[in-house]
Amino acid sequence: MVLKRKIYLEDKPRDIALKECLEHFEVNRVTEEVRVSEALGRITAQPIYANRSMPHYHASAMDGIAVRAEMTIDAHENNPVHLHEGTEFVYVDTGNAIPPEYDAVIMIEDINIVSEGVIEIIAPATPWQRIRPIGEDITYGEMLLPQGHELRPVDMGALLAAGMKAVPVIKQPLVHIIPSGNEIVPVEENIQPGKIIEFNGTIFSGLVTEWGGQPEIQPIVKDEPEAIKEALLKSSEAADVVIINAGSSAGSKDYTASVIEEIGEVFTHGIATRPGKPVIIGKVNGTMVIGVPGYPVSAFLVMDWFVKPMLAYFLGIPVKERQKLPVIAGRRIVSNMGSEDFIRVNIGKVNGKYIANPLTRSSSVTMSLVKADGIVVIPPEHLGVEQGNLIEAELFRPVEEIESTILFSGSHDLCIDVLSTFLKEENHSSKITASHTGSMAGLMAIKRGEAHIAGVHLLDPETGEYNISYVERFLKDREVVLVPFLKRKQGWIVAKNNPLNIQLVTDLKEKGVTFVNRQRGAGTRILFDYLLSKEGVLPEEIIGYDREMFTHLAVSAEVNMHQDHAGMGIYSAAKAMNLDFVPVAEESYDLIMEKDFYESDKGKKLIEVMKNKRFKRTVEEFGGYEVCTDKDPVFFNQK
Amino acid sequence: MVLKRKIYLEDKPRDIALKECLEHFEVNRVTEEVRVSEALGRITAQPIYANRSMPHYHASAMDGIAVRAEMTIDAHENNPVHLHEGTEFVYVDTGNAIPPEYDAVIMIEDINIVSEGVIEIIAPATPWQRIRPIGEDITYGEMLLPQGHELRPVDMGALLAAGMKAVPVIKQPLVHIIPSGNEIVPVEENIQPGKIIEFNGTIFSGLVTEWGGQPEIQPIVKDEPEAIKEALLKSSEAADVVIINAGSSAGSKDYTASVIEEIGEVFTHGIATRPGKPVIIGKVNGTMVIGVPGYPVSAFLVMDWFVKPMLAYFLGIPVKERQKLPVIAGRRIVSNMGSEDFIRVNIGKVNGKYIANPLTRSSSVTMSLVKADGIVVIPPEHLGVEQGNLIEAELFRPVEEIESTILFSGSHDLCIDVLSTFLKEENHSSKITASHTGSMAGLMAIKRGEAHIAGVHLLDPETGEYNISYVERFLKDREVVLVPFLKRKQGWIVAKNNPLNIQLVTDLKEKGVTFVNRQRGAGTRILFDYLLSKEGVLPEEIIGYDREMFTHLAVSAEVNMHQDHAGMGIYSAAKAMNLDFVPVAEESYDLIMEKDFYESDKGKKLIEVMKNKRFKRTVEEFGGYEVCTDKDPVFFNQK
Repeated sequence: MVLKRKIYLEDKPRDIALKECLEHFEVNRVTEEVRVSEALGRITAQPIYANRSMPHYHASAMDGIAVRAEMTIDAHENNPVHLHEGTEFVYVDTGNAIPPEYDAVIMIEDINIVSEGVIEIIAPATPWQRIRPIGEDITYGEMLLPQGHELRPVDMGALLAAGMKAVPVIKQPLVHIIPSGNEIVPVEENIQPGKIIEFNGTIFSGLVTEWGGQPEIQPIVKDEPEAIKEALLKSSEAADVVIINAGSSAGSKDYTASVIEEIGEVFTHGIATRPGKPVIIGKVNGTMVIGVPGYPVSAFLVMDWFVKPMLAYFLGIPVKERQKLPVIAGRRIVSNMGSEDFIRVNIGKVNGKYIANPLTRSSSVTMSLVKADGIVVIPPEHLGVEQGNLIEAELFRPVEEIESTILFSGSHDLCIDVLSTFLKEENHSSKITASHTGSMAGLMAIKRGEAHIAGVHLLDPETGEYNISYVERFLKDREVVLVPFLKRKQGWIVAKNNPLNIQLVTDLKEKGVTFVNRQRGAGTRILFDYLLSKEGVLPEEIIGYDREMFTHLAVSAEVNMHQDHAGMGIYSAAKAMNLDFVPVAEESYDLIMEKDFYESDKGKKLIEVMKNKRFKRTVEEFGGYEVCTDKDPVFFNQK
Repeated sequence: MVLKRKIYLEDKPRDIALKECLEHFEVNRVTEEVRVSEALGRITAQPIYANRSMPHYHASAMDGIAVRAEMTIDAHENNPVHLHEGTEFVYVDTGNAIPPEYDAVIMIEDINIVSEGVIEIIAPATPWQRIRPIGEDITYGEMLLPQGHELRPVDMGALLAAGMKAVPVIKQPLVHIIPSGNEIVPVEENIQPGKIIEFNGTIFSGLVTEWGGQPEIQPIVKDEPEAIKEALLKSSEAADVVIINAGSSAGSKDYTASVIEEIGEVFTHGIATRPGKPVIIGKVNGTMVIGVPGYPVSAFLVMDWFVKPMLAYFLGIPVKERQKLPVIAGRRIVSNMGSEDFIRVNIGKVNGKYIANPLTRSSSVTMSLVKADGIVVIPPEHLGVEQGNLIEAELFRPVEEIESTILFSGSHDLCIDVLSTFLKEENHSSKITASHTGSMAGLMAIKRGEAHIAGVHLLDPETGEYNISYVERFLKDREVVLVPFLKRKQGWIVAKNNPLNIQLVTDLKEKGVTFVNRQRGAGTRILFDYLLSKEGVLPEEIIGYDREMFTHLAVSAEVNMHQDHAGMGIYSAAKAMNLDFVPVAEESYDLIMEKDFYESDKGKKLIEVMKNKRFKRTVEEFGGYEVCTDKDPVFFNQK
């Protein structure tokens, strides 16, 4: 079985795969009439011509009186003309029909009442003044909207005004979404190791809705050729487009391509992109079938590359493009020759420039899509992008939102999320985007102008003091400010009731405990190394020392899985997973920021929220924290 | 009654009115749990923390075998290591759980099968390689989404992956929309002169939906203080925001402001804008009430200025801004000091520049919003914008759509709409935007670089020839191309069965017919003037000569209303309204374009569609047309 697999996929350029896909796509458009009031966002199936003029009568454009213009010719300040109600004028309000015997309107402001039923005017009226003629807005027979037009609220108004109750629109293309895989279980089920919740289907369903299609998630299909065949045959008869998720690669249970080949045709199996390579584009029963890879990032991109243009093509509308923004690569981005690389990035405006920092490249990390501000494409002929180079990003968020975002880098602390929440409450458009990179990486981000603020807790083993000496050493000559933020407890994170009774660093070695360590440059790791060296324990003597976790919560999650593991971290992380916490040290967790940012409106707002009493109370109620934002900031290298 | 009215409104700056409005707005946010699969576009009511890690077990990142890394240390090309299935390795597929006794995965591509159940490897595995550790994507307790976050498809996926079935979102603010006015009738009714279809409510309803609110259109209320009071009291108890449409000015039936004053408070009555001035912002029963003016353009803008930010404020999200684009004023735009002017514009890319041309300023013209590509704001301290000045437009359409639009100017012909329809069918993103300005204005638009193509039918009375001499005279030294398009019949548009038996231009004078004339510079008017002078009839002898209609259809509409009127126009316009047509002349309607455009891809595509057989057939089936796109184009002033 193993040896018979097709291991290699094609490397077809993405644009060629799309071109072929659209060429093979037989569009079966159906027109349906929907009530105008329910037509928001629908696409017109044909040009729409007005059924009625608007106004459909000569209407007064003002509150005033309708007159015959010829009777007013002689009116002048020195020669007021008197008119009699009913025979020589009538009162009209805005929108009233002009009686056929009149041909002009004089504004109410320009008349004087002389007596009951008699007025005077002191200026002549020109024929048709202040009258909205028939068809001023809409003329009967006029083309209101072209076909292939997405109906907006104003269009709906114009349709009603033009006498239409219903509008012919294109029936939304029906898109069947078939989740497949033995490991996939519905959302409702209790989940066992080795099982994965079916969530891609819901992402696809949302995307299809946004793109104007009608999604229908089908029951989960097992990794069995017969089951896949049956599902594809059934859906290909019902739907306009069929999406089958996972099984699109060349693994031992990837039957999709061979099944489509058996009952239809495969046009593409594999494209020259990373991620997103294992795509299948084929046809069954005359219906296009797209085999989408299982990893959520690959899946999202494949939907965007193929299903989005297919639905636009079906509906006869242009493909909606994302806003583009020139950005500066905050770090070097490497790329392989021969394939397009799609790099999710965070973008922030630092020192007036848009800086893009790559997020994880792993295509299994859904959260990288959630957190991304945009995506950068490295073309197949490029080996990557150097730090500082200008590149173009496609945005996932509006640029105003990106501009108002505070970029955080450095050590992870739950209080940063809380700070962001409070900031957002105060100012809806402001928030903190956090890269949890560890304290040292945070300092480096400030140095390179990649972040507005860095969270650090770096112990100087020589002095026992936190942060100050690191800023002096690593941010030489930079005008930065250290803003005191938290005192927090570091300690052992252990299973409930501390079954191994871990108290000292030597306990780890003596009891053969597996230690869950943090990455190099993390403040917690520096503290742990300090404790080891103080007790004369070598890293090699600690089981698990070499494996690195990137956040306090990841350490807790690991301990939570294994009774015989222990980690080092902050109290709140232990508490979040209902683990025990043995305090070891109290440390200073401070924020470092460029002086320019500190003095900016964004910076001032941030400091204000940090000093907010309700914020302090919320943080201290977590336990393990003391908020020390009352302390004075420390300025470095002032010019 | 007339004299007691309050005639003048405030001139409050718009930003101050909005600031006060938001200050008075008491937001009553309610949280509701909705199923994740139904949460697209909803706004999170609080920060969302993960209920579960993803993966929630150590998972294989590849198809391959799970091994103990320590057993592979010595593997080398010269020293293959053999492993036995079940005791020393197990096969794993992507996503499978790693059994606790193993700690690394080797890819299927890197193993050789030696015999049943025995494989060999030639390189060592490092611990944890090719394993997705618990929480790689999502860590239990991690903040997934902040509050005030609009849920996108990927967010829904992340929520499901993190173990959530439901998500706490802000209940959509309920917005009551009260249409008012004695002249307003529901869409279903047969409409009489003086009555207006209620369509603003549907526009508002669509906008409120797009902005995240829940609209509810209330029954139409008469212009009576008691009825308005009752409706406002009822809605103010039920809704989060109340919109009352029309009656917001200071006319004889504009009771809204005084009613709100009686039962609540009015904060603003009138803002310094054109259009949109007669706004009421007030409060009844603690609920904000917005009095929106009746004219659709004013109404749309007032909704955009006040209700959109109110809903964003309620939901705790940033106000979505429109894309902005620097554009060049194609014409001079005048503006009044002291009020912000909002000018609807068409925008096209001509000769590499974005040119904005103002549409009608009339706030009663719904179609000006439908047709607008964007809006330009002239600040209160400006007297206007000179032609050629750079200004900023807020876009109603994506810039790509604007780029692919062909700007038409000149004489109106129904075939231009048909041409646009065919062009759109061929290429979804391309279409023609038409300003119906008359033939001479079309030539001027080409001269000023405001349009890509102009439709002209200009008779030279000296030669009896069409168009050529006009291009020579008015587009001196410009490299332009005349593309022959149509021969079409001009004639008298008269009531069915031609009751006045109009045949000759002298009939108009002799029978005292009211003539429906076209505007100066229109080809049809030039033809009519030619006929008059040929017969020695003076314009003063023609009743109605001075009133100007801007399109053939408008002429037809006017004749359709009045049996004793007659107009001059094309056959298709008469036919559209089932009127009679008496042919008078055959004329040439041609397209003039800059040579650069003629030779561009857009230009070539257009010419291709004009020569398309199905297009020709469609046009000729209207009657009165002969398509002559087979004739050779005429080049002027070639360099």
